[in-house]
Amino acid sequence: MAKMNAFYAQSGGVTAVINASACGVIETARAHKERIGKLYAGRNGILGALHEDLIDTSRESVRTIAALRHTPAGAFGSARYKLKGLDENRAEYERLIEVFRAHRIGYFFYNGGGDSADTCLKVSQLASSLGFPIQAIHVPKTVDNDLPITDTCPGFGSVAKYVAVSIREAGFDVASMAATSTKVFVLEVMGRHAGWIAAAAGLAAEEEGDAPHVILLPEVEFDEGRFLAKVEGAVKKYGYCAVVVSEGVRGKDGKFISETGMRDAFGHAQLGGAAPVIAALVRDRLKLKYHWAVADYLQRSARHIASATDVTQAYAVGKAAVEFALAGKNAVMPAIIRKSDQPYRWTIGEAKLADVANKEKKLPRSYISRDGFGITPACRAYLAPLVKGEDYPPYRNGLPQYVKLKNVPVPKKLGPFGAS
Amino acid sequence: MAKMNAFYAQSGGVTAVINASACGVIETARAHKERIGKLYAGRNGILGALHEDLIDTSRESVRTIAALRHTPAGAFGSARYKLKGLDENRAEYERLIEVFRAHRIGYFFYNGGGDSADTCLKVSQLASSLGFPIQAIHVPKTVDNDLPITDTCPGFGSVAKYVAVSIREAGFDVASMAATSTKVFVLEVMGRHAGWIAAAAGLAAEEEGDAPHVILLPEVEFDEGRFLAKVEGAVKKYGYCAVVVSEGVRGKDGKFISETGMRDAFGHAQLGGAAPVIAALVRDRLKLKYHWAVADYLQRSARHIASATDVTQAYAVGKAAVEFALAGKNAVMPAIIRKSDQPYRWTIGEAKLADVANKEKKLPRSYISRDGFGITPACRAYLAPLVKGEDYPPYRNGLPQYVKLKNVPVPKKLGPFGAS
Repeated sequence: MAKMNAFYAQSGGVTAVINASACGVIETARAHKERIGKLYAGRNGILGALHEDLIDTSRESVRTIAALRHTPAGAFGSARYKLKGLDENRAEYERLIEVFRAHRIGYFFYNGGGDSADTCLKVSQLASSLGFPIQAIHVPKTVDNDLPITDTCPGFGSVAKYVAVSIREAGFDVASMAATSTKVFVLEVMGRHAGWIAAAAGLAAEEEGDAPHVILLPEVEFDEGRFLAKVEGAVKKYGYCAVVVSEGVRGKDGKFISETGMRDAFGHAQLGGAAPVIAALVRDRLKLKYHWAVADYLQRSARHIASATDVTQAYAVGKAAVEFALAGKNAVMPAIIRKSDQPYRWTIGEAKLADVANKEKKLPRSYISRDGFGITPACRAYLAPLVKGEDYPPYRNGLPQYVKLKNVPVPKKLGPFGAS
Repeated sequence: MAKMNAFYAQSGGVTAVINASACGVIETARAHKERIGKLYAGRNGILGALHEDLIDTSRESVRTIAALRHTPAGAFGSARYKLKGLDENRAEYERLIEVFRAHRIGYFFYNGGGDSADTCLKVSQLASSLGFPIQAIHVPKTVDNDLPITDTCPGFGSVAKYVAVSIREAGFDVASMAATSTKVFVLEVMGRHAGWIAAAAGLAAEEEGDAPHVILLPEVEFDEGRFLAKVEGAVKKYGYCAVVVSEGVRGKDGKFISETGMRDAFGHAQLGGAAPVIAALVRDRLKLKYHWAVADYLQRSARHIASATDVTQAYAVGKAAVEFALAGKNAVMPAIIRKSDQPYRWTIGEAKLADVANKEKKLPRSYISRDGFGITPACRAYLAPLVKGEDYPPYRNGLPQYVKLKNVPVPKKLGPFGAS
């Protein structure tokens, strides 16, 4: 068989370490030039494939590619673009195969979450049925940590570390000011459907009285009265209360609490912001001085405080994806398999995409404390190794040096998508 | 003269490095036991002196005190409590002197901003007039960087580094997602009156097109039309726009923009949150997808990304304060004197409290770009050395190890304040 090229694309919300996976893919592909030709990347993810907007990664130096390991976000551009089902939009899948065929792409590495695992699987199936077999390998990534089978998702460990460090620091701050100033501090973190990120903040509370005192998870229906009693109790006992609220928390009515409260001057609902809603509740009902923070993108891009475990795993799944391809595998994903908690030992296993696609791993009930406002020792044992180790980027003049790629386009061979 | 004891208190909003100043004060006082007796700290700042709630720092080990250098926030508790003028509340000052006399305190080290410099000066003046002379030395601290004479205020350099690092990272994130997702990202930072912190975010923009593209400073009146045009221009040119907004930005009417917008379900004005107001404007007027973050306390407690320059200076002013006292000085403050920008060379000088108290150093016009949305090369030259160097705290199990003190109380000798 003639040597085939490879295609790599980043999908969905980016993370502090998705480029470390890219680094693993590219460095490993380069190490096997006898088997893999060029490695092309999609500009803005899968859109790059649909529009034949390919990037020639061979134009980047060894040093530049190595620097991807410590650079946050998506170096080739990512996309929030979900391909529909095969029946609904077969044309898109056929276009992908057309582009892959035109550029002799025999390996498809797709770096994303549950949706992209599904796309990856469909590409593999359709390519085969169209007589242009492509080995489609999914590379796991998501700060939400909601993929099944794999012990964790690269990207999550670094967000987890960021939120645990941040609430510990803010907790020290509020504790020292509470006698005359802020008594309740609310930090909003990501997690629209699953509470993994909010739960990770709980790692900061190692001793009685440590922040955070209250964690609001999407898995637990928000109960105003119980919440206020919990806050009041913490303030009475410790002098202050640090609250971590997941953006995905919902009330009895099933609506996000972030959607219930704020209206702007025109009466429009203010999108985003569970923290200000919670803080306003504390103010109105408990009459306590409050402050709130919304970490938003800061948390998922915070490469400066990345978990070394996370970086290592992100690189490892990228490398394993290429090795899987070289071993002839198809429609699979490298998964992190936990061998033991302490010391944390893990290895790379193999998950079938059919078992990964469109499944969501929520925080199990056994990880949530009985009152619903904290995490259990089992949860802590699961989370602790994922934030372990520091992996600082290089600095120049006090600022982290992140790399920007040249992203040289590959000459097009086809007409525009949809024009034929 | 018999050996006198010393008193140290933390005042106002805490910082990532105020404990490094405490460390400098305590270690230096311990090194001069032949001259300085016990070093007492005020529990919750000056309140500890008013209520004779003193902490015996001699009960903390050498190792614990050394760990203050890498621990954020106020280890003895700080207070937002401004003593009134001598005429308005002479009783409070007299009480301070009474407590100092009872505990044979001859040295008063007050670690804070402009208000506390004023208090420090008054204590010095009144003590002398009451026949119990106290050497009152102010130790500068404020994230706002608004004290005169000193080149910078310990605490500022670390916030500056935090916001510059954060907007760089979030900028990479948004840039990689902008094709299909968020086009405008808004980060709110502190600075109620002066724009130093927001300006520091500008350090992240080293090359054309780098984030942040727009900085909204309290020194520049907010003009909706010009702002929207600037954002639109950046989106057109770079595909996205990263905005940093100071909490202190005001509109034409002189009101904080954070107070203009949001109302909760009950119609109450929502306090805090310039970022959501700016983001809503972008949504309503430009119809662009947005995200916003409010760093709040995370920025000033972020010891994990402290500036090494800042930590060094915080320690140095603490040390110098004790040395000033030993040299017989009174009503002064160690100030950082810049000798050169590049390489940054500085030394400790001496500022009279009468020249420091109640004066506010705002961002000069020459540091603001002509269009008002950025910083000038002069500003960059001033700011750049302040964020230089990393000074990471020690980690255990992936989390920074910050120290908690025992804070053993000193037995009281007086009745309660106001009871006599």
